[in-house]
Amino acid sequence: MSKKSKSSALYKKKGVSQSDITNASSIKTIQNKRKQQPTAKDLVSKILNGNITALSRAITLVESSNPKHLKKANEIIKHCLPKTNQSVRIGITGIPGVGKSTFIEALGIHLTAIGKKVAVLAVDPSSSLSKGSILGDKTRMEDLVKNDNAFIRPSPSGTSLGGVARKTRETIILCEAAGFDTIIIETVGVGQSETAVHSMVDFFLLLKIAGAGDELQGIKRGIIEMADAIAINKADGDNLKAAKLAKVEFNRALHLFPQKASEWQPKVTLCSALKREGISNLWSLITDYLDHTKENNYFETHRTEQNKFWLLQTIEERLKSDFFNTPKIKEALKSQLQFIEDGKTTPFVAAEYLLKLKN
Amino acid sequence: MSKKSKSSALYKKKGVSQSDITNASSIKTIQNKRKQQPTAKDLVSKILNGNITALSRAITLVESSNPKHLKKANEIIKHCLPKTNQSVRIGITGIPGVGKSTFIEALGIHLTAIGKKVAVLAVDPSSSLSKGSILGDKTRMEDLVKNDNAFIRPSPSGTSLGGVARKTRETIILCEAAGFDTIIIETVGVGQSETAVHSMVDFFLLLKIAGAGDELQGIKRGIIEMADAIAINKADGDNLKAAKLAKVEFNRALHLFPQKASEWQPKVTLCSALKREGISNLWSLITDYLDHTKENNYFETHRTEQNKFWLLQTIEERLKSDFFNTPKIKEALKSQLQFIEDGKTTPFVAAEYLLKLKN
Repeated sequence: MSKKSKSSALYKKKGVSQSDITNASSIKTIQNKRKQQPTAKDLVSKILNGNITALSRAITLVESSNPKHLKKANEIIKHCLPKTNQSVRIGITGIPGVGKSTFIEALGIHLTAIGKKVAVLAVDPSSSLSKGSILGDKTRMEDLVKNDNAFIRPSPSGTSLGGVARKTRETIILCEAAGFDTIIIETVGVGQSETAVHSMVDFFLLLKIAGAGDELQGIKRGIIEMADAIAINKADGDNLKAAKLAKVEFNRALHLFPQKASEWQPKVTLCSALKREGISNLWSLITDYLDHTKENNYFETHRTEQNKFWLLQTIEERLKSDFFNTPKIKEALKSQLQFIEDGKTTPFVAAEYLLKLKN
Repeated sequence: MSKKSKSSALYKKKGVSQSDITNASSIKTIQNKRKQQPTAKDLVSKILNGNITALSRAITLVESSNPKHLKKANEIIKHCLPKTNQSVRIGITGIPGVGKSTFIEALGIHLTAIGKKVAVLAVDPSSSLSKGSILGDKTRMEDLVKNDNAFIRPSPSGTSLGGVARKTRETIILCEAAGFDTIIIETVGVGQSETAVHSMVDFFLLLKIAGAGDELQGIKRGIIEMADAIAINKADGDNLKAAKLAKVEFNRALHLFPQKASEWQPKVTLCSALKREGISNLWSLITDYLDHTKENNYFETHRTEQNKFWLLQTIEERLKSDFFNTPKIKEALKSQLQFIEDGKTTPFVAAEYLLKLKN
């Protein structure tokens, strides 16, 4: 191990991130840098003024695993909170190949053109493994990235969906405090991440293409049931006829489900993100939904329910990780699993043993 | 409050159940009765001899919420454990009206006739509310209940599925130790209870009737995907033609799913529980499955995986209930939920607060 990597490992332990270290051999430099770190108060006031650098810094604190950073992040969020209820949060899902990035760029450009400020976030628990399978590469949204009224942030990394979702949810609050009034949260149409995204948005859009043959999957995994609208993308050229047919079919499928608590009948619409067609139609569908749910009060009660759900989720997640990350438990769990494999104990006796060990 | 009810409340607190109390005003009588309670060792030796009274008593201990009873139950289970791997565990689900009780009785009678010892259990977390919606009334299985080689036990009561499932799983072990070689576990085709039952059985049977129109529900909730076989019941008289059509359709649906880890291709079969037709066919289908999965070792590895899953499940369940049942937390949770309702905190800040409160 070189001297440099040794000392950076040391600072890492102390909770100083790699990026804080300009000269790893000089502790003094680091201490000076630390003093220059903006306080939570500084960051809050800058965020509320729409300062993007401050917003990015605060998100980095939210995403950190350093307890000091998390404390600071909580402080910032607390003060940003009163500014956060003026937004619309839209979840977008669809399997790879459906054209999500192109679609989100088209929607983002439409929204900024009509005066909205758009933040695009992502929930992709696999991104730490695949090095950013969605939104990892901002170049996919070339036009939107240059737009001053758009802010794009890739998925936080993390191995557990619970952790990734928590970070994204806090990032929503920061973006809203910074003046972004439309939050788009992208996720991939695989795994449980749709459910997580669905539980943090006001409107959930399922992006489809004609003839992908994944209808059964969508029904099976409850994704179609969650959708407030289905947009059939790539409805252009030779594909238009098939897209129109798919629209009829999806409309029929949507009617098989019982009425939603929002009393909104989900709609199917066509679009071509590439040609930027059908995007304003879709947006007026979303505003119809917002009018409808604000009128019947669902919008408000739904957000409150989501917050309560997230309180319980966060606690459960933490109880589990606190327990299973205790070194004593980790060790003992290994042997208990072996005893189970050998038929020497029952799951329940083993659980009793492990739970007692904790106290 | 009368003197009697006062003192029975007192004994209840001390962990003496109502049924232990013959004369609530005489503590001496209770102490004598206590002395007469069989020890764990007594119960184990009687259970291993196939004594049904001892088996029932041990199950009552498993179902108790008294910590002393649970300790005794764990002791009993530990000693019964070496005797439990000689059985077959069959899960049966189907929506109300499909004829589950009649079917299970027909299957039970067939099995006892060919020399099996059959225990019928149920998982129904709603039963405490609805006073036993399934198997609450043994009279529904009049013929089977009289059979010496059959043992029928209604669903343990409980508000959480986790708790009900745990109790049932421990009851399986006791029944197997008492010499029951075929364990049938019934559940209702609503809610999450199928998943719980699926995770404790070797073979999972979905009971259907023709034209019930719940196919989409079954696909959506993943029940069809879990099934190792679908039996279409009431395939008699005028209904036979429709049942045969349904068989073709379900066979097609089953082929839409990817191959199971067991490498078993699920089958569809017809039966009439009322006329006791098609039952032996179904049983030979089940024995085919058992031969197949024992040969490719899936039977064994699957049971081990189930046990590991249950270890983790049990721990998670207990971590949650320990936390949320702490009086201090209960109180504080109420106010935090109110703060969320008033928009005065975030779920994450509230969770931090509650988690800190515990330590």
